[in-house]
Amino acid sequence: MSDDRKITPQAQDFPQWYQDVVAGAELAANSPVRGAMVIRPYGYAIWEYIRDALDRKLKETGHENLYMPIFIPLSFMQREAQHVEGFSPELAVVTHGGGAELEEPLVVRPTSETMFGEMWSKWIRSWRDLPVLQNQWANIVRWELRPRLFLRTTEFLWQEGHTAHATAEEAEIETRLALELYRQVCEEWCAMPVWVGLKTETERFAGAVRTYAAEALMLDGKALQAGTSHFLGQNFARAFDVTFQDRNNQVAHVWTTSWGMSTRMVGGVVMCHGDDRGLVLPPRIAPVQVVIVPIGRKAEERGRVQPAVARLEAELKSAGIRVKVDDREEVTPGFKFNEWELKGVPLRLELGPKDLDKGVVTLKRRITAAKESLPLDQAATLTPALLEEVQSQILRRAVEFRDANTVPVGDKGELLEALDQGKAALAFYAENRPAEEAFRAEAKATVRLFPFGDEGGEGSCVLTGATASRRAIFARSY
Amino acid sequence: MSDDRKITPQAQDFPQWYQDVVAGAELAANSPVRGAMVIRPYGYAIWEYIRDALDRKLKETGHENLYMPIFIPLSFMQREAQHVEGFSPELAVVTHGGGAELEEPLVVRPTSETMFGEMWSKWIRSWRDLPVLQNQWANIVRWELRPRLFLRTTEFLWQEGHTAHATAEEAEIETRLALELYRQVCEEWCAMPVWVGLKTETERFAGAVRTYAAEALMLDGKALQAGTSHFLGQNFARAFDVTFQDRNNQVAHVWTTSWGMSTRMVGGVVMCHGDDRGLVLPPRIAPVQVVIVPIGRKAEERGRVQPAVARLEAELKSAGIRVKVDDREEVTPGFKFNEWELKGVPLRLELGPKDLDKGVVTLKRRITAAKESLPLDQAATLTPALLEEVQSQILRRAVEFRDANTVPVGDKGELLEALDQGKAALAFYAENRPAEEAFRAEAKATVRLFPFGDEGGEGSCVLTGATASRRAIFARSY
Repeated sequence: MSDDRKITPQAQDFPQWYQDVVAGAELAANSPVRGAMVIRPYGYAIWEYIRDALDRKLKETGHENLYMPIFIPLSFMQREAQHVEGFSPELAVVTHGGGAELEEPLVVRPTSETMFGEMWSKWIRSWRDLPVLQNQWANIVRWELRPRLFLRTTEFLWQEGHTAHATAEEAEIETRLALELYRQVCEEWCAMPVWVGLKTETERFAGAVRTYAAEALMLDGKALQAGTSHFLGQNFARAFDVTFQDRNNQVAHVWTTSWGMSTRMVGGVVMCHGDDRGLVLPPRIAPVQVVIVPIGRKAEERGRVQPAVARLEAELKSAGIRVKVDDREEVTPGFKFNEWELKGVPLRLELGPKDLDKGVVTLKRRITAAKESLPLDQAATLTPALLEEVQSQILRRAVEFRDANTVPVGDKGELLEALDQGKAALAFYAENRPAEEAFRAEAKATVRLFPFGDEGGEGSCVLTGATASRRAIFARSY
Repeated sequence: MSDDRKITPQAQDFPQWYQDVVAGAELAANSPVRGAMVIRPYGYAIWEYIRDALDRKLKETGHENLYMPIFIPLSFMQREAQHVEGFSPELAVVTHGGGAELEEPLVVRPTSETMFGEMWSKWIRSWRDLPVLQNQWANIVRWELRPRLFLRTTEFLWQEGHTAHATAEEAEIETRLALELYRQVCEEWCAMPVWVGLKTETERFAGAVRTYAAEALMLDGKALQAGTSHFLGQNFARAFDVTFQDRNNQVAHVWTTSWGMSTRMVGGVVMCHGDDRGLVLPPRIAPVQVVIVPIGRKAEERGRVQPAVARLEAELKSAGIRVKVDDREEVTPGFKFNEWELKGVPLRLELGPKDLDKGVVTLKRRITAAKESLPLDQAATLTPALLEEVQSQILRRAVEFRDANTVPVGDKGELLEALDQGKAALAFYAENRPAEEAFRAEAKATVRLFPFGDEGGEGSCVLTGATASRRAIFARSY
């Protein structure tokens, strides 16, 4: 089930490199429906590890999963003015069902704030019902005119968390908690360092009071929004009349939040770690963590090696490692090495007659050039720590890249120069919507966020020269 | 977040009992879109346990998850003649996307044989690519005019397995393997005994050569189809031109299967085990396996009991038990007992000052009337075995009910009598489509399947008097 394996070098054409890796590693494919991707088993398995990591964190922090309908009455979308304005151009609309035209068209959900609002208006009565901490894993449709696999697709998979609280303060804490969970998943699981911080008003979610985001820097110097978390104030609570009786028997609207992370994360992993040989997977989200390639041209050699390979495989499996033995006879070891490197497998173990004679197994890490030698009888015991080491190496490398490619700039000339060099820039910025929109049109770049941890100080706004009290990350983006 | 808790007795009105339990236990709710349900957190958690059990079994047997698009070009549905005929009346159709009318309408998937066929035609080349063993967890839309929560809904969640094989024999083995996994999930996890066997031609999936099913008997004597598995022959392979080069370099069409199990299982669990106090959950799929209710009217009593309750909770948690402490002060213990019984929690532990003085905790199983006493310091150690015991008790009870309510009958009079008594019947049947359809119209009942393990023998067909070589299960059904 393999297609063409040729990988365009990153330096030659990064977008083409991305497409080649996604196709060659069999992560995803275009479907006959424009913009709607097929997530192939290898890509889906990566998503499952990301999903499960986040799902555990959500459950540990008291969130409950549920499932809301995919169809939303068109009129619901219209109840929150900014929300409908933001999403109208992207809607898919069902007009016929069960052989008849529908009285009211149904929208295929682009997000579910409205449906949660509607149901909460029935479920929430008293302060005792709060907070409501809910989440769903679901498919989402937003019509996409320039689709790219994982990054921008008409249909994608995500989780959307929706919570309701008695006070603005509690909702704000929740908004920041979700963001922190995203940071953990990005950094601890995907080895993808992220800036977390506040979006500008211009970049805010349609209907939100404040939007926070986690943003990562890809290898081509563009930013990728990895997750967003919105403090919605009482906007949706008012639109859907979600009220509760507080401890003093007063009726008030709830305060709500929403936040999402999607399958675009898989594309982010590709572009954060990959190289000209293909995908590089952090071990924690790798469907195959270790591939064993038996070496031996002759049947007699393969026969000698086979029992040791089987024993090693069994030992690795019982150590909880995801291991695969590639014992195909119709292709050469070199072919196999290329294939598993393209697929980003973190560790390769080669075992041939010479290794066997010396009581060793040859180790090749995906991210380093040199081969190493491990005592065969300790290989399985050593592997878990090796995988954790590689996980750290990949993260460290990504942090170094990100830091080396994020430059502090003082004026607009420097800012444009940094962007043209394929870097992100850090500069003082005083929010100004017209200036921000003009800059976007001019530079094809945006203000990604005001990063946490960089508050304080004072300088002149890189766009307007006005006094600014905080710096922002500027970058081109996906 | 609770609604009205009144439960209509089963004997008075079984459908109303079902609705009351689904609403009262907060399993699901109707959404503003007719026929599309909201699966509430408690119902969704049950589904997660069923889903995870099946997902593990599928992975252990070599199946890979992936994700196909929800939108299918209308023309795809039309390529397999029986398929489009079967599904046309149930389709939801997207006619507009991104603000414009679409050139070709898109169908919201009612099942995905066509999309797998299309992609396989690109991916499968050689016998080395076979078998392809794929599965997806997805939402499905089939327009439903008479919806009932979980049982018949316009949108539902399911898994759909799709596999391709080099030979008919291998595809047949796979079809039966999927059926066996469904049997295991039904019986081992949901404590729901099922008949497994072959459907008649009349009841076959639209486009299949043979359909197998797992069918359970509900407490009102109606059958529920818990899962189906289809041997599709080369029907879809021909329609989508899915071919492979075999070991002799001959090009041939693959042989395919498909099989699905859905959220209707949650409704099946309700109707297989529930009683007039509400839901009864098998421990393995219970979101809360043990509820601890501290007893004590006065603050001083509650204060005395509290540390012991906290210790017991911690012990149960570290034993891997899903435990909840209900320490609400605004409601009585009796109110709590009713609520957790309605929610089907398998075990309740009560701990009051008197229990504490005696060094015991009071145990109440959901399915028995008597209270028992456990040594407090051994309660956590004893609980895992108690839960397994309850799991078996619930299954045994369901098997006894099923056996007592399935009667062998010799002629049509007896058959109709059994059905009218709210029972299923076992009778010789020689397939005859006109007779089967006439019977369906007359008796509002169907042939559910020819059960495995009942082959052989000879008798006269209960519908036509013709010689029949096997018996079938007849029942009214959901």
